[in-house]
Amino acid sequence: MREICICLEFLTEQHKDQIREAAGAAGFEPRFFTLDQFEEARDCLQHCEVLYAHSPELLKAAPASLKWYCCSYAGVDPYCKDPGLFANPDCMLSNSSCYGVTIAEHVVMVLLMLLRRMPEYEEVVLNRGWSNQLPIRSIRDNRFTLLGLGNIGFHVAERLRGLGAAEITGLSRSGTAREKVYDQVLPISALEEVLPRTENLIMALPGTAETRHILNRERIALLPPGALVVNVGRGSAVQQEALIEALNAGRLAGAALDVMEPEPLPKDDPLWTAKNLILTPHVSGNMTLGYTCDRNVEMFCEDLKNYAAGRPLNSLIDRSRGY
Amino acid sequence: MREICICLEFLTEQHKDQIREAAGAAGFEPRFFTLDQFEEARDCLQHCEVLYAHSPELLKAAPASLKWYCCSYAGVDPYCKDPGLFANPDCMLSNSSCYGVTIAEHVVMVLLMLLRRMPEYEEVVLNRGWSNQLPIRSIRDNRFTLLGLGNIGFHVAERLRGLGAAEITGLSRSGTAREKVYDQVLPISALEEVLPRTENLIMALPGTAETRHILNRERIALLPPGALVVNVGRGSAVQQEALIEALNAGRLAGAALDVMEPEPLPKDDPLWTAKNLILTPHVSGNMTLGYTCDRNVEMFCEDLKNYAAGRPLNSLIDRSRGY
Repeated sequence: MREICICLEFLTEQHKDQIREAAGAAGFEPRFFTLDQFEEARDCLQHCEVLYAHSPELLKAAPASLKWYCCSYAGVDPYCKDPGLFANPDCMLSNSSCYGVTIAEHVVMVLLMLLRRMPEYEEVVLNRGWSNQLPIRSIRDNRFTLLGLGNIGFHVAERLRGLGAAEITGLSRSGTAREKVYDQVLPISALEEVLPRTENLIMALPGTAETRHILNRERIALLPPGALVVNVGRGSAVQQEALIEALNAGRLAGAALDVMEPEPLPKDDPLWTAKNLILTPHVSGNMTLGYTCDRNVEMFCEDLKNYAAGRPLNSLIDRSRGY
Repeated sequence: MREICICLEFLTEQHKDQIREAAGAAGFEPRFFTLDQFEEARDCLQHCEVLYAHSPELLKAAPASLKWYCCSYAGVDPYCKDPGLFANPDCMLSNSSCYGVTIAEHVVMVLLMLLRRMPEYEEVVLNRGWSNQLPIRSIRDNRFTLLGLGNIGFHVAERLRGLGAAEITGLSRSGTAREKVYDQVLPISALEEVLPRTENLIMALPGTAETRHILNRERIALLPPGALVVNVGRGSAVQQEALIEALNAGRLAGAALDVMEPEPLPKDDPLWTAKNLILTPHVSGNMTLGYTCDRNVEMFCEDLKNYAAGRPLNSLIDRSRGY
């Protein structure tokens, strides 16, 4: 019997039944573990051709007979940066782009918090004060620039549209987007032209060599005064020191980072005290939301069918490109 | 020349031109003041038949010849509670329901903050910690109960719909709603049947004798454990002591109050320290958002045309009913 090694924390009994059914239909036997059963999982992995997990250590322990590693996370930068993790150089890597809904809700939340000046109002309330005349802004009739038009970018754009956004400009590597939810789509190479008219920048890029420090000091300086920056992709995309300076100088009105470098953030990092910065400890796409978990399992089962039938995987990653 | 006394802080030159044009076309002369010109405004008011302001003091200083008071706020409870403010018992009162967009954005923001446990994550970040495994909830696939289906309720429902809410139940005094954005509309008398299945309660009611403490201790106890409460109507609608107890006991997962009793909140009020409560100092509908101000002036100009033509006002308030 062909075997699948599954090492995940979030699976309910219902999810396991769903996987058993899909695996059975495709001629596979699933073996379930959690991370505290690392050794048992590693032993089992020696005779499995598929691994569904989010553990570089486990992947590294897999023999050359592993043919497909389905990562339950969306960001696969650790796997693309280090080809040595794969004993089989041709092992397929897929990711799980099921985080768009929850991350988009996070983006809408922090955007509204920044537009409506919640960091400042929270300070007023902390001091038991009562003042309410700060000029605020609205999503309705406002313009947004999305950097990265994958699953997250799409769900963000869809929600901004529903909230009455006036204009949504999308930037992707190819200069195209699968979904028709953007007012215009440009290649990332147009970034420097777009920044001076970008009042609200939302970043949802994968962590690759190309995206590293894509929002650097020079580009932060191109944003108009009072602009807002939200990053939910990878911390490496932002030159943090320059962002902190722009925030503390009041040149940017605010920012929200759910991702940063390094994670966890050291206790003495200047990000903790930057002005009008909403920091969250990488929570936007976490697995504590039922919908995200359900969709994760669903996507794996769909691709298991594809794998068994010899069809291309829906979520296949180009390991050299990094996404 | 028939005169209009206008005493408002938020008018731009463009707004004034717009009012001058509408007034001129209707045969009126507008006189502009701000609240620091109270005496000049009061003197002028002696020969005006229309007042556009938000000042009970100014209204009280108006002679019996005043025929229409257009209040630039949405909530007109101070004017309905005290008929002695009107020298002319037949003076028409209208309000300005232009706050739906900004208040709805506030509601979406605090709902997401509560569903995604931001008060708790803000505490983590304040202590420079790094933990991210709190179970969160989503607007998508979630159910919401709206108490009060006026301009605010409508805009909230429209946005929840756009964010993928599974079911929106609306309650209004009449049991009907003008807009078809709700899954079901019930009379407020059904409140006690609806509360046990209400995980997310959003209150946007006017301040009247009927709505006073409508969410009392007994009804708070009817909400399921883990429910959320948002109030953006009037503070009087919630029995605050009972809400604080339910929050501090962890029976409710959280609440957001933008309105409370009294305002400003005294420094020693127990609301300041209630658990998982997002307090804001009555900011949700403030006049610092351009759209709100533009729409305010637009609505006044439309009703000025109606007034001059002897047609009913769009925004006429039933002074005995209170909204």
